[in-house]
Amino acid sequence: MSSERVQFWYEFASTYSYLSVSRIDRVAADAGVGVAWRPFLLGPIMKLQSGWLDSPFNIYPVKGRYMWRDVERLAEGYSIPFQRPSVFPRNGLLAARVACVGVSEGWCEEFTKRVFKANFADDRDISDPDLLVEILDTLGRDGEAAIARATTVENKDFLRKQTEEAKGLGIFGAPTFVVGREIFWGNDRLEMALEWWKNHRG
Amino acid sequence: MSSERVQFWYEFASTYSYLSVSRIDRVAADAGVGVAWRPFLLGPIMKLQSGWLDSPFNIYPVKGRYMWRDVERLAEGYSIPFQRPSVFPRNGLLAARVACVGVSEGWCEEFTKRVFKANFADDRDISDPDLLVEILDTLGRDGEAAIARATTVENKDFLRKQTEEAKGLGIFGAPTFVVGREIFWGNDRLEMALEWWKNHRG
Repeated sequence: MSSERVQFWYEFASTYSYLSVSRIDRVAADAGVGVAWRPFLLGPIMKLQSGWLDSPFNIYPVKGRYMWRDVERLAEGYSIPFQRPSVFPRNGLLAARVACVGVSEGWCEEFTKRVFKANFADDRDISDPDLLVEILDTLGRDGEAAIARATTVENKDFLRKQTEEAKGLGIFGAPTFVVGREIFWGNDRLEMALEWWKNHRG
Repeated sequence: MSSERVQFWYEFASTYSYLSVSRIDRVAADAGVGVAWRPFLLGPIMKLQSGWLDSPFNIYPVKGRYMWRDVERLAEGYSIPFQRPSVFPRNGLLAARVACVGVSEGWCEEFTKRVFKANFADDRDISDPDLLVEILDTLGRDGEAAIARATTVENKDFLRKQTEEAKGLGIFGAPTFVVGREIFWGNDRLEMALEWWKNHRG
């Protein structure tokens, strides 16, 4: 199923994922390409591959300083609302678990967009279950019930497997777009991934 | 002087610098923007900021694997000849010193293009003085004499100051484009830097 669409792998704490979350709908629709939204956790992969226990943008402050300015400029160019969160990175574990429930129930995309906006435009704490319940309720879902489904053993395991799959694909950062066996890392590669899908699908 | 042009900071060992070296002329000319070529050494900056004694693409092999495929795909898209060098990264110290002589004598750009092509299209060893002499001779320069000027105390110091300036600008990777106080990291940002120059120069 996913092979018929571009896979969009994202991490809730990731600034560049926010840019892609905010624009992929429009860009993919213009290209006539479908998108499979794939939440995963980047933290365990970075820890394993690089030994990093924090965002590389915190570990390497010169690079971090650049990243904030870069994202600010890009967001302005895309007309995406952005303000630097007062806490970075925020823990996106629960949000990712809820998004997995959304994948099977068909509301992952709308939920994801609102959580990213809360973090990167409204400076709200996305690790707070109350915020996630509020967002789910806004979407016409039963927030408490969705959180309960998100924290079952089965769903936790589902997210773990997503992250394992990401690692197996060679993913090391977010966002990453996947077309067949090709991976495209970064918001900068969204257009290239869509183009690749059009030229090489099947 | 440089403020009237976009500054193009590059490192001879850098794969993404090769992509920009190969296309900046055409892209900048199309945009009507002048370019100041600024060779520097990324190694000392990475060592200082990150503790890395090798390319991060070697230190983090999953990222390295991706980089080679990414560069290959991009080079194909740009119609730039590319083959993965049998040694990476190659030591670009002498080439950078020679390029500094070229800056003051007006042949930096042509020399730089040929050295990058030798490394990333023809798999030749750019740390070999004989190769640099050969390239200089092809450009109608006295190769031996240029190498001699490149290795004077004054010129070594000039390159050291370039690298210090790069660090002072907040540069942490290559290529980087500078417009006033804004820096734009990576071949992916070339177009954005040119656009920024047109909108904000002076």
